[in-house]
Amino acid sequence: MTTSSKRTGVWILGACGSVSTTTIVGTHALCAGLTDTTGLVTASPPFDKLDLLPLESIVFGGYDLSPRDLHERATELANAGIFPSALCPSLRDSLQEVSSNLLPAPMSPNNRSQSAAEAAAQVTTDLEQFQNRHDLDLVIVINLSSTEPSLDPHPALSAMKDLRPWLEQLPVENASPGIVYTLGAFDAGCPFINFTPSPGPEIPSLSELAIQNRLPHAGKDGKTGETLVKTCLAPLFLARNLKVLSWEGTNLLGGGDGHTLKDPDSCRTKTRSKDRALRTLLQDPSVHSGVHIHYVPSLSDWKTAWDFIHFEGFMGTRMTLQFTWQGCDSALAAPLVIDLIRLVHRAYQENLSGPLGHLAPFFKDPIGFSGHDFARQMDALYRSLLPPEPSPKRVP
Amino acid sequence: MTTSSKRTGVWILGACGSVSTTTIVGTHALCAGLTDTTGLVTASPPFDKLDLLPLESIVFGGYDLSPRDLHERATELANAGIFPSALCPSLRDSLQEVSSNLLPAPMSPNNRSQSAAEAAAQVTTDLEQFQNRHDLDLVIVINLSSTEPSLDPHPALSAMKDLRPWLEQLPVENASPGIVYTLGAFDAGCPFINFTPSPGPEIPSLSELAIQNRLPHAGKDGKTGETLVKTCLAPLFLARNLKVLSWEGTNLLGGGDGHTLKDPDSCRTKTRSKDRALRTLLQDPSVHSGVHIHYVPSLSDWKTAWDFIHFEGFMGTRMTLQFTWQGCDSALAAPLVIDLIRLVHRAYQENLSGPLGHLAPFFKDPIGFSGHDFARQMDALYRSLLPPEPSPKRVP
Amino acid sequence: MTTSSKRTGVWILGACGSVSTTTIVGTHALCAGLTDTTGLVTASPPFDKLDLLPLESIVFGGYDLSPRDLHERATELANAGIFPSALCPSLRDSLQEVSSNLLPAPMSPNNRSQSAAEAAAQVTTDLEQFQNRHDLDLVIVINLSSTEPSLDPHPALSAMKDLRPWLEQLPVENASPGIVYTLGAFDAGCPFINFTPSPGPEIPSLSELAIQNRLPHAGKDGKTGETLVKTCLAPLFLARNLKVLSWEGTNLLGGGDGHTLKDPDSCRTKTRSKDRALRTLLQDPSVHSGVHIHYVPSLSDWKTAWDFIHFEGFMGTRMTLQFTWQGCDSALAAPLVIDLIRLVHRAYQENLSGPLGHLAPFFKDPIGFSGHDFARQMDALYRSLLPPEPSPKRVP
Amino acid sequence: MTTSSKRTGVWILGACGSVSTTTIVGTHALCAGLTDTTGLVTASPPFDKLDLLPLESIVFGGYDLSPRDLHERATELANAGIFPSALCPSLRDSLQEVSSNLLPAPMSPNNRSQSAAEAAAQVTTDLEQFQNRHDLDLVIVINLSSTEPSLDPHPALSAMKDLRPWLEQLPVENASPGIVYTLGAFDAGCPFINFTPSPGPEIPSLSELAIQNRLPHAGKDGKTGETLVKTCLAPLFLARNLKVLSWEGTNLLGGGDGHTLKDPDSCRTKTRSKDRALRTLLQDPSVHSGVHIHYVPSLSDWKTAWDFIHFEGFMGTRMTLQFTWQGCDSALAAPLVIDLIRLVHRAYQENLSGPLGHLAPFFKDPIGFSGHDFARQMDALYRSLLPPEPSPKRVP
Repeated sequence: MTTSSKRTGVWILGACGSVSTTTIVGTHALCAGLTDTTGLVTASPPFDKLDLLPLESIVFGGYDLSPRDLHERATELANAGIFPSALCPSLRDSLQEVSSNLLPAPMSPNNRSQSAAEAAAQVTTDLEQFQNRHDLDLVIVINLSSTEPSLDPHPALSAMKDLRPWLEQLPVENASPGIVYTLGAFDAGCPFINFTPSPGPEIPSLSELAIQNRLPHAGKDGKTGETLVKTCLAPLFLARNLKVLSWEGTNLLGGGDGHTLKDPDSCRTKTRSKDRALRTLLQDPSVHSGVHIHYVPSLSDWKTAWDFIHFEGFMGTRMTLQFTWQGCDSALAAPLVIDLIRLVHRAYQENLSGPLGHLAPFFKDPIGFSGHDFARQMDALYRSLLPPEPSPKRVP
Repeated sequence: MTTSSKRTGVWILGACGSVSTTTIVGTHALCAGLTDTTGLVTASPPFDKLDLLPLESIVFGGYDLSPRDLHERATELANAGIFPSALCPSLRDSLQEVSSNLLPAPMSPNNRSQSAAEAAAQVTTDLEQFQNRHDLDLVIVINLSSTEPSLDPHPALSAMKDLRPWLEQLPVENASPGIVYTLGAFDAGCPFINFTPSPGPEIPSLSELAIQNRLPHAGKDGKTGETLVKTCLAPLFLARNLKVLSWEGTNLLGGGDGHTLKDPDSCRTKTRSKDRALRTLLQDPSVHSGVHIHYVPSLSDWKTAWDFIHFEGFMGTRMTLQFTWQGCDSALAAPLVIDLIRLVHRAYQENLSGPLGHLAPFFKDPIGFSGHDFARQMDALYRSLLPPEPSPKRVP
Repeated sequence: MTTSSKRTGVWILGACGSVSTTTIVGTHALCAGLTDTTGLVTASPPFDKLDLLPLESIVFGGYDLSPRDLHERATELANAGIFPSALCPSLRDSLQEVSSNLLPAPMSPNNRSQSAAEAAAQVTTDLEQFQNRHDLDLVIVINLSSTEPSLDPHPALSAMKDLRPWLEQLPVENASPGIVYTLGAFDAGCPFINFTPSPGPEIPSLSELAIQNRLPHAGKDGKTGETLVKTCLAPLFLARNLKVLSWEGTNLLGGGDGHTLKDPDSCRTKTRSKDRALRTLLQDPSVHSGVHIHYVPSLSDWKTAWDFIHFEGFMGTRMTLQFTWQGCDSALAAPLVIDLIRLVHRAYQENLSGPLGHLAPFFKDPIGFSGHDFARQMDALYRSLLPPEPSPKRVP
Repeated sequence: MTTSSKRTGVWILGACGSVSTTTIVGTHALCAGLTDTTGLVTASPPFDKLDLLPLESIVFGGYDLSPRDLHERATELANAGIFPSALCPSLRDSLQEVSSNLLPAPMSPNNRSQSAAEAAAQVTTDLEQFQNRHDLDLVIVINLSSTEPSLDPHPALSAMKDLRPWLEQLPVENASPGIVYTLGAFDAGCPFINFTPSPGPEIPSLSELAIQNRLPHAGKDGKTGETLVKTCLAPLFLARNLKVLSWEGTNLLGGGDGHTLKDPDSCRTKTRSKDRALRTLLQDPSVHSGVHIHYVPSLSDWKTAWDFIHFEGFMGTRMTLQFTWQGCDSALAAPLVIDLIRLVHRAYQENLSGPLGHLAPFFKDPIGFSGHDFARQMDALYRSLLPPEPSPKRVP
């Protein structure tokens, strides 16, 4: 492994969204010593012993449908209580510098005269220019944009040789942005992190391209709140041989995410991702489960989830567990985004390519890993990153 | 390992309590094919592959302060909804047979003319007679009686050579029943399971005796409900580097257990056991936590727990998780009691002695195991009982 | 007011459903002294002083899509924990007698060769025969059947002179059962209670008929659980000038009702009824509110509702109230059904006709009363039934 | 009624506490048009029609154990999220002016060389000087200080003729501050509002003095959160004849109030006040109920209450209602304090004296009013303040 003195680029799709803005503010606040590392997995033992990418080396840039001044966005989020207002004035210069690295997404309505393939080529060009302009050793691309509708099956998705011709004749407005971004990133030699449930590197043709270009990727759909709790609790029922009869989850959320998910198609993409975890965890395809997402504007970035679990124990006794999670989505997601940047950077340095299955604990729908049990996912992360402990002896 | 065609005795302390009655009813209902194995860990994969003690081989007996007819007790519990009323008539004969194996505890007021040492000797005699009368290969003793007040430190607790002289001059009414029972059991060559938070084999002098007599023991304080959920959820906060500010648990319970825990001393024994787990799990001795137990007679055997977790994420954002657990204590505990009997029987057959640390997932305050994280405890149980899987390969 | 020595008929639509069966079992259990009057408003002070219809005078009969033996149905419900199993054997004779008064509904598929008008005429005939056969002073009809889809507007609904011609040419399978039943009942001189959200006497043409025939009616949609709590809590926010930002209600229910409400049309009928109450109560048409109903089969007759209320106080501080209601629908509804029978009987005796607005506290969507505030509705009930208390003096 | 062009004084006991600071900030923010009237009962219909004391007329002063700069305190509270930080700079001058009206309480350790009677005389002098210095038409005294331990019975509390001699020989450090303050206020001709559960004008001897001096008073213990919800929900159970088996309330709170209530004596004063309401409301002295208060420092001014209600319906079916209230105590209390000042001012102008029973909806333990049902209390408030509506006609 060679360490470079160069800085590393992070190109964010959806760069002015809440999660992105919180990530950028948080990184600069950490560098300036204005906040602590609470919430960062890579800053806690045993991961803090690893020699990971220093936050000072990161240069942010990215796309947004309508790029805005990040200092302004930060002030809006601080007023909504996502982080302390006192941070914003001190970070004004850094945030304005990042703002100068933002471009309108090639999906934006005013760019729509292109084919999907042209849009992907534009992504590649933009990434290369970003890298050159800042003399970066590497640019990592991360998707933090709004959830897309789910993808209809199409034969061109199965093999790389069919994908390019198809995209050449597909108008960009009909294309999945996630596919266009991933293709553009892989063509530019950039690792890709899919923090959304939208399509991305898990599409077989793009998976093929990642291997061919020797690029690592990680995804998908960041596991920040209700699903995180679910993947800690469901193994309990399995381990105790308690029969889950019904698991009903209700998610109330405002903010941009809530608004997007009012669209039934986008919502379906999201709830499928949540529901799949549960059935796998309980090893019972017959369990009655539901995931409901309701838009509640007054909550803005605060998500409230209520889960109701009805289960049966010994001799048919029926019992319940309920939980209510009240979390700030951006505050939960942003440190994980920073963690993923550092861990994908390390994987790239170690010449890993294809899906990074050991990053499963960060995702609702992990690619390259089988299983949703959070504790087992964390074990895989430990084993992958750290020298194995001496195997525990048989009890006495 | 030699398998015996003889039956195995199980001697229950607190034999007419709800947990005990449910255990005895459940075992006989399973043998008669009247219920299924939901709730039994040892009946679920991968443990169902092990050749464990068949339930048909078990002969129950035990002590109670005032022994009662178990068929009558079963009918009472069925009426309270703990198991279906329809089971009772079919099990009348089996339950009456068990009733004939019950004796008044040597702690009962009318036996009180003894010293603690005499009471322990009585336990030994009773266990030997039970074994001989039914021609049993082994008698396993399990404490399911009400929680005792916590024990004051005393030098005689530290070494076996001091314990016997002390108990000889100690009136039985001043002695800890848990110590008397454990001593009596170990002297009779019986393994001991402490399903309560009361004193037992973890007392250094008694630990010493277990090793000397080559007897295994397991404990302590069965992990059935709220604490089980806690030990699944707390590792989440640690793994995500989220700072728990306060964890406040409130337990409402009726029944005999609730009544005993109105006594502040007994309650302290119990809440200490619950609180210790939390601090260890969060690896933060400074976390503000509270465990409160309130007696609510109308709940009878149904326990309702509400936990409120206040935590801090990235850049100081404060969030909450609440859960409400509504469980039937006896229905949760009884199958674990059956599991423990089978697993301690196996340990005895394998000549294990001392504390069975691998049984940690069954206990709030595991003896012989360091750590409360439920997933890690289950891993230890797997590794101890099952041939190791080939070590997982490093991700690519 | 003249009191008759004759008995009074109660004709139930949906006679074999859970609410109906529980009502019939409960009435007979009370008459036999096998249960107490918990849950009956008319048995509590000050209503217990009124000289209302004795339960012994009631004769039950009714329609069901597929009439079944009520003793069998009762046993099923008792096994599901809705009332004690011990009641069933003692009530076998009474329940079988009621079973002999049940007829297949004129809406049943095998009766479908009729027009809606013919079906209504059949209802009238059936009611008259029931009255004559048992020599009843009066038959009260009550709708306890499954929720119908909401009704499309139609000019014939506005005036009685248009309704009959329209129903004469409308095939029964296209007609609203609620309208057919109400018409048939009013033609037979029977008061009508609409305990469902389905169409009924509030339809203008039928309202007109009630006045013309001098018949009282009451409705609609029994207020048993979540909405009852809502109409107690919402006035608090209004009284304290706290601004409700969002009120989101989630209802989980199994049973027949849950199954019917999987049909989006029927569900809409129900949620509209629930939502209307809230907006009126808060006197704020802009409040964001949602009512969601999810079918959870394992809950059977037990309904679990979670409401999340997000509100703003002084100087913009945002706060929340959540509640979880876990109730048995039939056990909550049945005593109210008995109350309504007694109170409608009294209204009939007092020659009241048209909508009985003073019965508003029993309904989600009260007809003949403006306002959903439960406390004010109870005040109206007191004032209507009881001599006014002397007006309270001005505080010193 | 004569209206004066003079301003009105408000003398706050515990002037630098959270509730007081929020009250003072809020009043000035309203006067400056920086916030709206959400949370003020007297600003909502129909009370907004009354010609009540304009907020601009209020001059604040008061006691604190250690008086501090109120602008500093306001900044602390704003940082804790109780109101927007943006308010503080604009109110700096007004808050500093109020700060100049603050005095150390005569209970402060450095004043302790007095008897209780001397301390009361000091209160009278301080109030008269405050009135003269600002040329006020009236000074209203309000107790917002920490909860005192409950009072031991003493014969001197029963009659005014015994109270003064007793206080003359009682060292101030042994006296109840609430009694000293009330006596001092009544001697100065000031109406008194007791927003705490501490002793005050309800003590018979002081009640006597209020009548004699023709002064109105109001109390006691502001009803802001959990108890408010309780007094809306409990009447539901009574009205529906549902039998409450247990009502268990758990209150988590940080802040000064939480710290005081760690003292078991103070806590008892508080929980008694809460518990009394419940038993009266349910009209069932046998109901099992508990009120528990736990100190959770991280919550600061945010109170979280969880109530669990176990109840029985028809034929013995047991059901539950739970609620979780998450409120900001100061934001809830402050507007009520403003309401009370305006309503007590009006009562004084109308020459009312003694306990103002019609202010019952503001208090947990209302003096001069029998009953805790919030809806009935609001009715009494309407009837007392507003011309009676024409009596509603008998339905129909």
